[in-house]
Amino acid sequence: MMTRLRLSDCGLSTGKRARLQRILYQHGLRNGTALFLPYDQGLEHGPRDFFDNPDSADPRYIVRLAVEGGFNGIAVQIGLAEKFYWDFAGEVPLVLKLNGKTDIPSDHHALSPLHATVEDAVRLGADAVGYTLYVGTPAHEADFTQFHRVRQDARRFGMPLIVWAYPRGEAVDAKGGKDSFYAVHYAARVASELGADVVKVNFPHPEKRAGVPAPYAGEYSSQDAIDAVVRAANRTLVLISGGGRADDEAMLDKAQESMAAGATGLIFGRNVWQRDHDESLRFIDRLREVLAKHPTP
Amino acid sequence: MMTRLRLSDCGLSTGKRARLQRILYQHGLRNGTALFLPYDQGLEHGPRDFFDNPDSADPRYIVRLAVEGGFNGIAVQIGLAEKFYWDFAGEVPLVLKLNGKTDIPSDHHALSPLHATVEDAVRLGADAVGYTLYVGTPAHEADFTQFHRVRQDARRFGMPLIVWAYPRGEAVDAKGGKDSFYAVHYAARVASELGADVVKVNFPHPEKRAGVPAPYAGEYSSQDAIDAVVRAANRTLVLISGGGRADDEAMLDKAQESMAAGATGLIFGRNVWQRDHDESLRFIDRLREVLAKHPTP
Amino acid sequence: MMTRLRLSDCGLSTGKRARLQRILYQHGLRNGTALFLPYDQGLEHGPRDFFDNPDSADPRYIVRLAVEGGFNGIAVQIGLAEKFYWDFAGEVPLVLKLNGKTDIPSDHHALSPLHATVEDAVRLGADAVGYTLYVGTPAHEADFTQFHRVRQDARRFGMPLIVWAYPRGEAVDAKGGKDSFYAVHYAARVASELGADVVKVNFPHPEKRAGVPAPYAGEYSSQDAIDAVVRAANRTLVLISGGGRADDEAMLDKAQESMAAGATGLIFGRNVWQRDHDESLRFIDRLREVLAKHPTP
Amino acid sequence: MMTRLRLSDCGLSTGKRARLQRILYQHGLRNGTALFLPYDQGLEHGPRDFFDNPDSADPRYIVRLAVEGGFNGIAVQIGLAEKFYWDFAGEVPLVLKLNGKTDIPSDHHALSPLHATVEDAVRLGADAVGYTLYVGTPAHEADFTQFHRVRQDARRFGMPLIVWAYPRGEAVDAKGGKDSFYAVHYAARVASELGADVVKVNFPHPEKRAGVPAPYAGEYSSQDAIDAVVRAANRTLVLISGGGRADDEAMLDKAQESMAAGATGLIFGRNVWQRDHDESLRFIDRLREVLAKHPTP
Amino acid sequence: MMTRLRLSDCGLSTGKRARLQRILYQHGLRNGTALFLPYDQGLEHGPRDFFDNPDSADPRYIVRLAVEGGFNGIAVQIGLAEKFYWDFAGEVPLVLKLNGKTDIPSDHHALSPLHATVEDAVRLGADAVGYTLYVGTPAHEADFTQFHRVRQDARRFGMPLIVWAYPRGEAVDAKGGKDSFYAVHYAARVASELGADVVKVNFPHPEKRAGVPAPYAGEYSSQDAIDAVVRAANRTLVLISGGGRADDEAMLDKAQESMAAGATGLIFGRNVWQRDHDESLRFIDRLREVLAKHPTP
Repeated sequence: MMTRLRLSDCGLSTGKRARLQRILYQHGLRNGTALFLPYDQGLEHGPRDFFDNPDSADPRYIVRLAVEGGFNGIAVQIGLAEKFYWDFAGEVPLVLKLNGKTDIPSDHHALSPLHATVEDAVRLGADAVGYTLYVGTPAHEADFTQFHRVRQDARRFGMPLIVWAYPRGEAVDAKGGKDSFYAVHYAARVASELGADVVKVNFPHPEKRAGVPAPYAGEYSSQDAIDAVVRAANRTLVLISGGGRADDEAMLDKAQESMAAGATGLIFGRNVWQRDHDESLRFIDRLREVLAKHPTP
Repeated sequence: MMTRLRLSDCGLSTGKRARLQRILYQHGLRNGTALFLPYDQGLEHGPRDFFDNPDSADPRYIVRLAVEGGFNGIAVQIGLAEKFYWDFAGEVPLVLKLNGKTDIPSDHHALSPLHATVEDAVRLGADAVGYTLYVGTPAHEADFTQFHRVRQDARRFGMPLIVWAYPRGEAVDAKGGKDSFYAVHYAARVASELGADVVKVNFPHPEKRAGVPAPYAGEYSSQDAIDAVVRAANRTLVLISGGGRADDEAMLDKAQESMAAGATGLIFGRNVWQRDHDESLRFIDRLREVLAKHPTP
Repeated sequence: MMTRLRLSDCGLSTGKRARLQRILYQHGLRNGTALFLPYDQGLEHGPRDFFDNPDSADPRYIVRLAVEGGFNGIAVQIGLAEKFYWDFAGEVPLVLKLNGKTDIPSDHHALSPLHATVEDAVRLGADAVGYTLYVGTPAHEADFTQFHRVRQDARRFGMPLIVWAYPRGEAVDAKGGKDSFYAVHYAARVASELGADVVKVNFPHPEKRAGVPAPYAGEYSSQDAIDAVVRAANRTLVLISGGGRADDEAMLDKAQESMAAGATGLIFGRNVWQRDHDESLRFIDRLREVLAKHPTP
Repeated sequence: MMTRLRLSDCGLSTGKRARLQRILYQHGLRNGTALFLPYDQGLEHGPRDFFDNPDSADPRYIVRLAVEGGFNGIAVQIGLAEKFYWDFAGEVPLVLKLNGKTDIPSDHHALSPLHATVEDAVRLGADAVGYTLYVGTPAHEADFTQFHRVRQDARRFGMPLIVWAYPRGEAVDAKGGKDSFYAVHYAARVASELGADVVKVNFPHPEKRAGVPAPYAGEYSSQDAIDAVVRAANRTLVLISGGGRADDEAMLDKAQESMAAGATGLIFGRNVWQRDHDESLRFIDRLREVLAKHPTP
Repeated sequence: MMTRLRLSDCGLSTGKRARLQRILYQHGLRNGTALFLPYDQGLEHGPRDFFDNPDSADPRYIVRLAVEGGFNGIAVQIGLAEKFYWDFAGEVPLVLKLNGKTDIPSDHHALSPLHATVEDAVRLGADAVGYTLYVGTPAHEADFTQFHRVRQDARRFGMPLIVWAYPRGEAVDAKGGKDSFYAVHYAARVASELGADVVKVNFPHPEKRAGVPAPYAGEYSSQDAIDAVVRAANRTLVLISGGGRADDEAMLDKAQESMAAGATGLIFGRNVWQRDHDESLRFIDRLREVLAKHPTP
């Protein structure tokens, strides 16, 4: 089992450290692990994601769920942050998502345009910002350029920068797809190399080998893969995405392997709120049990 | 029947609240509902829209009609605002439309360029600004980017931001078209996520199902659809567009269903002024009767 | 009896006209006259002004009184506007006072420093800004300089600029004092020459003649004096201050003479709220009776 | 016969009104009509336009002709303004053309780039600026964006803004071409909606009906068409272009119909200077006779 | 006994509310009260303040004491924040003091110059900023001007602004001195009117009556006085300063009366750290007992 990074070992500035300290030690289990609730699907996929649990269409329901469930933070777009965070300001840390897009046009040249700034995040009392970087997209020049500005602002304001490192675009599709071990491994490293403080990745699938470069064509267990992903991120904290709704036991296994690999935590949305309120809380409890076994020493 | 949002529950800043309070409670029926008169068709479609009622080509005729008809606001482009609003300044609220385009080139990559700023609106004493966001267009990056700037300025100046959320572009055409339930539902949500204070949408057509994502392929009544659209907008006030000239009874049914769903009001242009003056006023009276039955509690 | 200026005759830009139209015709008696409630005494004199009616120390009590009493506006400093206007946003127009000072140091070199901007006023949805200009102070260079900037911003944003034109300083004291006919007459003209849209002056006292220049040494009735003051202001609307608490009948006489002279309205604070709630409302009713007799034609 | 707009009815700022007053009442016939001499063809078409009258290649010849002929203004690009206007500065009003292009590449995606600023116009003592807007071009986003900046500067400096409203681009060609009634009618309206003070259009050709929208497919006389164009422009003054060299009587008929429709004047270049000096002056006299019959009341 | 202000009733922006929520409910007693540790005396008085407890000269000793003692925040100047806060970043909230001065020259024209910005505070992860406003000083114009800028920045960044409202200067000395009821009462109000979120005042001394304005010349108990001070501050949270080292029981009485008056908390420095470590902690415990009796309802 790998050890989790301590904040004092990450080369963080004072402000970034102060804010991550608050997230990791004054919320959730207060043991250096993290459970985040992402809620940007209304933009990314549209309100069809809320059909399974109609209550989930209401951002107030979700923010309250984050408070009740003892999350370490909630990630939303600017519009919801402006309208809904005031009611619970400071009760659960806010991660302001700075870019986003709809899924209506194709993802072949994916680029997620900015619609908020790090200064918005400061103004709203957020403790971190989120940026989606489409690793491998043909639009990567525009992506790197706007990421560059975000990183500079995050540094200037001492704001932790969480990168949603998502392999995307025609070339990714041709080389094993967006959740191959190759793609996730590479994405984690790119985030680290470009200056992320925290990186959010999908759980890697080493069995997806069609078209991947030779070194990834071998046999790897999922534990091998996630271990490598966390190592690739080096001093960048790692969060594992939940992705679309899946079987509970499978999700818990992923969580367990991720934490064992030294990830800092989990960021699970649809698997949490695409079920009714009480079921959500029961599933959250099981996730917290996993985190409780992996405190940062 | 759903309840209409109160201004005090929308997470508004002081200036946005003051201006919306003026629009909703010091004009029109003064009961928290709204009837807006849009008059940007001279740019969007060209002066052919004025052929049925030649008086309607004269902006002064239209502003006076808005005053006489007891509208809650009139939406025009910068050129008309500069030249015609002074005569009636403050008598009817001004909504300055900040972007617009002609319908001469195709809409496959639709983008509506800015030709005025929120500061212009402040300078002219407007009580809101309007922005057309083409949800789903391949040009969404440029659209989100210019919207971002508008949102920041609107926030800075306490100016309510009304988003004309219009599904548009090749991908929309392929997934059910611009007024399917899917497209309107998604558009309302996007406006809310990106920070609109008010969203203007077309009335959704659940019967348009060709190519829509699976959750929208079922049977929905128009009331089901409009209810869902208003819920998707959450703390964003909803206005329903009239669109092209249609049968009066059909328009009044739409109005009734929209208000029952909790929409804040209507924004009807061609259905109002593409007939002679007295007929316009008679139709306005019937719209006001609908609004009068749905005061904000 | 002089006629009151119409807004359409004042050379106003669209935004200034829209905002003054709202103040004069959508609040109060809606007849083109105005009754304003000033509440900056907590800064200008300190909380001792609230001892006679302890409720008056609470800004919420005062804003509510302005709403109940049907005032055309309430004038406060930035701190109170930020904290208290939201609750009543848009229900009574806000006049944001941009400068102010305590009365602790002497007034010999009086200068009222800025602590808010026209942009703050825009952001808060105010319908006018107020600026205290100390006419005759030895610090007039600094005063004119900061006024210059305020006027530019007011023009840029279409925001009506109300000047508290107060004769002040050693030289004023030596030439008849701050409320002589000479001093008030001169102050009204200075405000008009420098670009005020509205000027607030004290009622002139022609009997204060010690040290005044020769032309003011003659016998003038108070009606002569106030007539001349309004004429001196030309296309600048005139508001008459109440000043410190005085006898009701004397105040009503002043009000009557001011309106007969063509003033647009009154701005009475301590005479209103330094008494209990019901007495305040009774006195307000008597002021409204005076205004009702002098509608703008 | 329609009446011509008076300057006092156009909603103009002080500076714009002052400059247009100079153009319309202190030059030419001094009766509120205008005859402009455009001289940007050296850029737009190249010097081949000067072959018929070699003197016309010399800008000094043209400026002198404008003075001799009693024009209300001369429109040139920045280079000629810098080098030739000094000699006659103030003798004839200068209209500085701010953008322009060659006709070497195709006009399918036409856009006319800026090469001067409103501030250049101020510096040179110009009384107006000119901007070519290509209505309907696929490049309309870039066009609207640069126009936006020009309009803001023109407002800031009180400089009248004359828009050369030219239908252009593939879609225009497919819908009746650049001088159909449809295209000219729409172009005049777009200029008005976007904030032109004066719009320059080609004389409309209602007989060009191939591909035009239905409402334009009927029978219209040229007088009907030009009447509608002037009405569509509402409070924007209208100038009619001469276009390429044509028969004198046909030009004079156009002029007569335009003035009868309420246009403010004419802007004729090649028809004026593509002949020798004395003939030019004789033709100018005939144009002035038309204008003399249509004074602004 | 008065009730303490809730954060939701203070008219705070989202960011200010989030940060104050963290200070008041995630540190100290977590009951809405506050105990702050100020440590700017090394600048304000010089290191002679550390003679009684030499350890107190070491900023690291003090920050650790704040953590051990369960303080709600520690207030320091920029130099110490840069060098000492990293070690404990996020463990105790940081209040960055933005201005300060030595006590070497006289206080007759007192002004406390800025040496840090709100942006510094953001960068360091601070949860509030502090500004010393010298109420009544002849230098009030410069003071109001620099405060104005700080207030704007604090608003822009959602950073709570704590005003050290200190009566100072010749005129204050002549009217009862800096801790008279009159002076403290006025100072609290000035902070509120100018836009403080929190005001720090000295405990008022109603028995200091020499030279005070008439309304303060009567008999008031210290409870009457502190009650009035908290009321004058209205929606501005009140902190009571400890001032110089005094008798423990007297300090505890002040604390008790302040909390009973509705103050939010205490900011005690020298009374805490001018004694050895264990005594400090014992005294802190007694202060916490007082706060525990006055939770925010």
